[in-house]
Amino acid sequence: MTVGRTSTGPAAAAHLGASEIAAALRAIGVEAKAASRSLAILPSARKDRALRAMAAAIEAGRADLRRENERDLEAGRAAGLEPALLDRLRLSERVVDQMIAGLHQVAALADPVGAISELQVRPNGLRVGKMRIPLGVIGIIYESRPNVTADAAALCLKAGNAVILRGGSEAIHSNRAIATLLRAGLVDAAVDPAAIQLVGVVDRRAVLELLRLEGLVDLVIPRGGESLIRFVVENTRIPVIQHYKGVCHTYVDRDAEAAKAVAITVNGKAQRPSVCNATETLLVHREAAPRLLPELALALHERGVELRVCAESAALLGGSVPHREATEDDYRAEFLDLILAVRVVASLDAAIEHIQRYGSDHTETIVTESYTRAMRFLREVGSSTVLVNASTRFADGYELGLGAEIGISTTKLHAYGPMGARELTAEKFVVFGDGQIRD
Amino acid sequence: MTVGRTSTGPAAAAHLGASEIAAALRAIGVEAKAASRSLAILPSARKDRALRAMAAAIEAGRADLRRENERDLEAGRAAGLEPALLDRLRLSERVVDQMIAGLHQVAALADPVGAISELQVRPNGLRVGKMRIPLGVIGIIYESRPNVTADAAALCLKAGNAVILRGGSEAIHSNRAIATLLRAGLVDAAVDPAAIQLVGVVDRRAVLELLRLEGLVDLVIPRGGESLIRFVVENTRIPVIQHYKGVCHTYVDRDAEAAKAVAITVNGKAQRPSVCNATETLLVHREAAPRLLPELALALHERGVELRVCAESAALLGGSVPHREATEDDYRAEFLDLILAVRVVASLDAAIEHIQRYGSDHTETIVTESYTRAMRFLREVGSSTVLVNASTRFADGYELGLGAEIGISTTKLHAYGPMGARELTAEKFVVFGDGQIRD
Repeated sequence: MTVGRTSTGPAAAAHLGASEIAAALRAIGVEAKAASRSLAILPSARKDRALRAMAAAIEAGRADLRRENERDLEAGRAAGLEPALLDRLRLSERVVDQMIAGLHQVAALADPVGAISELQVRPNGLRVGKMRIPLGVIGIIYESRPNVTADAAALCLKAGNAVILRGGSEAIHSNRAIATLLRAGLVDAAVDPAAIQLVGVVDRRAVLELLRLEGLVDLVIPRGGESLIRFVVENTRIPVIQHYKGVCHTYVDRDAEAAKAVAITVNGKAQRPSVCNATETLLVHREAAPRLLPELALALHERGVELRVCAESAALLGGSVPHREATEDDYRAEFLDLILAVRVVASLDAAIEHIQRYGSDHTETIVTESYTRAMRFLREVGSSTVLVNASTRFADGYELGLGAEIGISTTKLHAYGPMGARELTAEKFVVFGDGQIRD
Repeated sequence: MTVGRTSTGPAAAAHLGASEIAAALRAIGVEAKAASRSLAILPSARKDRALRAMAAAIEAGRADLRRENERDLEAGRAAGLEPALLDRLRLSERVVDQMIAGLHQVAALADPVGAISELQVRPNGLRVGKMRIPLGVIGIIYESRPNVTADAAALCLKAGNAVILRGGSEAIHSNRAIATLLRAGLVDAAVDPAAIQLVGVVDRRAVLELLRLEGLVDLVIPRGGESLIRFVVENTRIPVIQHYKGVCHTYVDRDAEAAKAVAITVNGKAQRPSVCNATETLLVHREAAPRLLPELALALHERGVELRVCAESAALLGGSVPHREATEDDYRAEFLDLILAVRVVASLDAAIEHIQRYGSDHTETIVTESYTRAMRFLREVGSSTVLVNASTRFADGYELGLGAEIGISTTKLHAYGPMGARELTAEKFVVFGDGQIRD
């Protein structure tokens, strides 16, 4: 294998010059592009066989994974990584089980590629339809969790795409071990192993060189914090799936039922506060606030949620439940923690305006028994997932029925919201004629 | 009205400094963004009424259009514009008729916005679907033909988007006159006239400032030559619909019928050679070449087509039909003229390889009576429009049943191939619950 590939250690990579890094990344891009051509026309059964062979290889390689992961964990401890980061880095048996289950799940999904839809007959007899095709080569740039290596590779393969994976340097040994097993699975299924490329160069300049592979890489998906995403967007002309942050709202409407309002709000905020689809702001209709806010606040407080409330909420709560005053910044915050901004709004319109002004186009829900107001909320809120009487936590590819998720787009171009295998494809026009020419 | 808007003459614009141009464009962007919010939820009937009112305004304003167009034509003649460019600039009665008919046609199309598709019921009872929504604000940057002003505005409005139009400086009076009439139509239908913005600043720096309106403009569509498209791509972080060029292929297969092969090839090349879906290269299967190539060459020659052929073709043609030797460059050329590159290929695979290597992902057709080979060509050729036994000239939004066309994308992200109103929309997830929370 060549420099910069999965076989190259970080020691070797540390000595690479800028032009060597550029050459290594270009070689990866060229190999991936070539592999993408054969992948595009690979029958579904072969892709699914490869996915199951990848799962078997991971299963057989558990000892390798443990050993290589331990090297990363040791280096992480030596470098003083925080416990939360070490935890994300750890390939526990449970995480490995999930990786294997994920590969089988993706194998079981329907193949999006090749389906022809919307076939219509034109007046001149031409039959025109759209056929789903892969995008080509997907670049994934991600941070600490090494299980992303398997999840992302599986979805890209399912959709007929080659993938270039660039994980965090702190997980390099784990990522290499996973990629090596995945490629062994491809070989077992007689699929070109070049379909899965891991960038073995730890140097950060490798990311920049990956971002310069215009014409070889068709889409870049950064998975990580806001700074990573901004860095990617500002340093490439390749299309990027952008997912900046999730400032999600639960809006308790005038006509909300108390039990649903409490369950949905508490679940949205407290069930898993560290993720992007957790509720960050609770909006309550003014006419419902005296009836519902004290009960909502108490339930949230009992789950350990700190409340940052508007003046009107504070007056209603009085001394019944601890709270502090919300600042303007609190309404824009992605707390990712047991903290909730709370605001009373004068109307459904005011709730929609608040979401438009402070939201992040991620996910919003309305709790209401009013058909008309539910429909208005669904239509008028422009976020990528809009729910009625359900927790914001459902904004997730698996929960929404995509089978798996490669990321969440909060910009509307190409895909909007959770993205599964289908969102890693495009459609071309196919035309069945019998000699038609234009007049 | 403010500086830089439709009311501002080129004389005034010529005196604007860089910061004034930037401020003028930002003001246009802010107005368009605000208008896009109300447009997004405008009922279909109101949009269609506006489109018909725009058509009526153009009809009533024919004299204005003639006068303002004459100013552009005079300036163009004085500046020594070529006859072909003057011709594209001219708003003849026929072109105005087409603009009016186009507005009525777009009014008659189905509204893509609001439709919910793929509704599925999840095991927990959640009903999950996708609702089509507008993109927001579309920026269109185009060259001489002023009728694009009406066509583009109509499609953007149909899909619920605000539009910012930036036409060529040589058509500024015509474009202003058209935009003024279109906005009058919006007012007649009680739709916010800010939905249609024309950049009145002739200075080229205005294009750069338009390209900097990230966050206000959601998509940029350049319509024009390769240099315009490269300029746009290299100067913006806003997503761009890229349509570089059309190097379209007609492939006459081993099993082609002679009459179809001749009709489709001649139509593809000669019916309108100046457009992007005209055939630029003819590929002929080696086993069909002795039977079909002389007949094909003669028919093309009789239509005035210059043939640039490979050595094998030359040997087959001998002295029967005039031809010259093709260079490597000829296989990459978008002639847009009565010139055709011709090459004999050894197999279907070789034809597909040639297309992959020299093509532009625009449009390719196969002429064949073989079911299996037709299906292989359809599946394996990755271009945005792939046809069987039909002329490449059908790669056009209207011919493919989109009702109208805003452009053709030759990159796969967001849209691929001819784009109609639906391609100016996105889809958000909508979820109907009755109290569901996550475990």
